[in-house]
Amino acid sequence: MQIRPAINADHDAIWNIFHEILVAGDTYAFDPQMPREEALAYWFRADTHTYVAEKDDGVVGTYILEPNQLGPGSHVANAAFMVARDAKGAGVGRRMAEHCLTEARRLGFRAMQFNFVVSTNARAIRLWEQLGFKIVGTLPGAFHHPDKEYVDAHVMYRSLLED
Amino acid sequence: MQIRPAINADHDAIWNIFHEILVAGDTYAFDPQMPREEALAYWFRADTHTYVAEKDDGVVGTYILEPNQLGPGSHVANAAFMVARDAKGAGVGRRMAEHCLTEARRLGFRAMQFNFVVSTNARAIRLWEQLGFKIVGTLPGAFHHPDKEYVDAHVMYRSLLED
Repeated sequence: MQIRPAINADHDAIWNIFHEILVAGDTYAFDPQMPREEALAYWFRADTHTYVAEKDDGVVGTYILEPNQLGPGSHVANAAFMVARDAKGAGVGRRMAEHCLTEARRLGFRAMQFNFVVSTNARAIRLWEQLGFKIVGTLPGAFHHPDKEYVDAHVMYRSLLED
Repeated sequence: MQIRPAINADHDAIWNIFHEILVAGDTYAFDPQMPREEALAYWFRADTHTYVAEKDDGVVGTYILEPNQLGPGSHVANAAFMVARDAKGAGVGRRMAEHCLTEARRLGFRAMQFNFVVSTNARAIRLWEQLGFKIVGTLPGAFHHPDKEYVDAHVMYRSLLED
């Protein structure tokens, strides 16, 4: 599996994955009706580094890395990850996350923060904890889950200054 | 003091206050060089309710109220407040915050979240705690303070479902 910066030719593959996530509606706080152009604009913002994970048969995941805040908060990175439904459970998320931590350090970020990890997304929380993130805050009932009504979301954080 | 929705004629007054905050650089994670048009675009986004606090001699404060996340996170409000330097300590922030909580309930929000309260901003933290907010998370060293280097920022949250 190769992880590389995304290019325009990846737009279709990225939108396919993004759209699966929108339809599932259980991990991200996006409008499920978000149109393709808006989704791609969000995923390719000016201050955002966008990557894809590629196997022989095509793109299986994508992630973004960006400053979480402006100016005096811009030394903390934010990142978001999406794995194609058919590729789940094959370590794509972990490989992208490890790549992301390396990239974040290379770009000079001092820490990384996830603003909104849905508490029912056990797979993601376990992975982030294995990669050194801690839950530093919990937002009560902040996510309206399609099956479980209002569930908590977590803020997760790790320093990039030491391992 | 009157608090009312902002109109185009308030742009100069809002930018004066916004610019004071940018120059001080000790409370918000904005680029200190943020130009007027960008600041106003941020303060008047499509999904944002913008208000001003006005006394006889003009606008003394401004605040915004908006969904903190999209879609399944859009029932939680975010808000941001700015008080003119010359009007600080006169209760403008408190009056705007009380107005904001009423407006947020009227608009159907179930909770309110502040994503990034700089830990050295004791005045704001005390006010939010008096108004029922709790620190639900702390982001270590997430704000580069102009005098104090890297200081923590807090995530604060309160339900709007009960008093």
